[in-house]
Amino acid sequence: MSDPDRTPPAVAVVGAESPGNVGTIARSMKNFGFSELLLVDPPELDLDGEAYGFAGHAREDVLPNAEELDFRTLTEKYHTIGCTAVTGEDDRRHVRFPFSTPAELADRLPRVAGPTALVFGRERIGLTNEELAGIDELCSIPASPDYPVLNLGQAATVVLYELRGLALEGSQLPDVERARAPPELVDRLYGSWEELLAEIEHPPEKREKTMRMLRRIYGRAELTEREVTTVLGLLRRAVERPDRG
Amino acid sequence: MSDPDRTPPAVAVVGAESPGNVGTIARSMKNFGFSELLLVDPPELDLDGEAYGFAGHAREDVLPNAEELDFRTLTEKYHTIGCTAVTGEDDRRHVRFPFSTPAELADRLPRVAGPTALVFGRERIGLTNEELAGIDELCSIPASPDYPVLNLGQAATVVLYELRGLALEGSQLPDVERARAPPELVDRLYGSWEELLAEIEHPPEKREKTMRMLRRIYGRAELTEREVTTVLGLLRRAVERPDRG
Repeated sequence: MSDPDRTPPAVAVVGAESPGNVGTIARSMKNFGFSELLLVDPPELDLDGEAYGFAGHAREDVLPNAEELDFRTLTEKYHTIGCTAVTGEDDRRHVRFPFSTPAELADRLPRVAGPTALVFGRERIGLTNEELAGIDELCSIPASPDYPVLNLGQAATVVLYELRGLALEGSQLPDVERARAPPELVDRLYGSWEELLAEIEHPPEKREKTMRMLRRIYGRAELTEREVTTVLGLLRRAVERPDRG
Repeated sequence: MSDPDRTPPAVAVVGAESPGNVGTIARSMKNFGFSELLLVDPPELDLDGEAYGFAGHAREDVLPNAEELDFRTLTEKYHTIGCTAVTGEDDRRHVRFPFSTPAELADRLPRVAGPTALVFGRERIGLTNEELAGIDELCSIPASPDYPVLNLGQAATVVLYELRGLALEGSQLPDVERARAPPELVDRLYGSWEELLAEIEHPPEKREKTMRMLRRIYGRAELTEREVTTVLGLLRRAVERPDRG
């Protein structure tokens, strides 16, 4: 995923009105491995206000380490990627076109070194056209044509989620989603089912078809060892039917 | 993307404490084309409170049309996908394993018909183990091993973003991110650069290499027609240098 020699993009929030949104963005940054928060014209961020209240564990580092700077300094020091709702469909509306989607950025940015900042604008009006004109490239989140305008915190979360590969070596999730049971064990499962079909006097001419269906079901489910062991135990008890004793 | 005959998954919010989070989720639902909101044990949703305040345009439909139901009814009526933070790495912790990532769900769900609900739990404790036991399958968002626990509204936004293909035919974005300028026009751009190199007496032995670099730059940028036309105009003026007249 990420190159350890490379700094993940900074996140710049321009002119946010709500401290809660700054806190939410800080939390999402920490969730996805980002740490450098830049604030242009921020609201007051009180230690006992909404910014710190919404920041989760990011109240310990991302938020108190945030750097305040002006917009010109931001565009001078960083390659800036402005995140903005694109609603027009006209390539002559040059200010917001061309754009990349977050997934496309995730594909391209790892091949480019140099300080980069993801720039998010105000809650209601986003980035002004004047600000957009000073920005190097644009990013827009694909959403519903009926209502493509995301809340500021939600937009930042989606972009940071898509770009997490620039900031994280891996994730909290195990490398495999499931440790598939060994085939021999799964075969024992099918053996047990065959025994049970015999025991319950399932019509012999139907057994092959039924077994094929069972294989399809379990095959699609990609059972873990624990799951197979559990079902095997159930089938064994069903075959033995202890209550008959 | 989505099949018009198929209903997108419902979104179920279980035991949320904050009306604002319910509103945020409703807004994200509308952003990504989802409409069926199910509420188990919801907080009060006042028309002039945070739920409606945070819902954006979803205050007009998703939120007022939300259905309240109990958890048992939810699991009986829907194939339930519980969204939960997975932090353990042990496939014997059966309750939260196996899981799918949102991207994997986006890949698999289009091939399955039938009523489905994405289930989100409480702000602090998520879904209880008892609730998880009644749920059909699990989904977990890959995040930082240091802090994988997303805010409720952010988690729902990421999942709905990834699954938007189940709910939307397309997006607000133009089909192409940029309409690449016709090759003949781009060739005129290179022609103008060659003229300019001659005009500024760029060393002839360096021109080929310089032109190659310019082609690489513009090639990577995949210029639009408008962009080429603009740069052509600039180069023409640079060649003509009207101030010399």
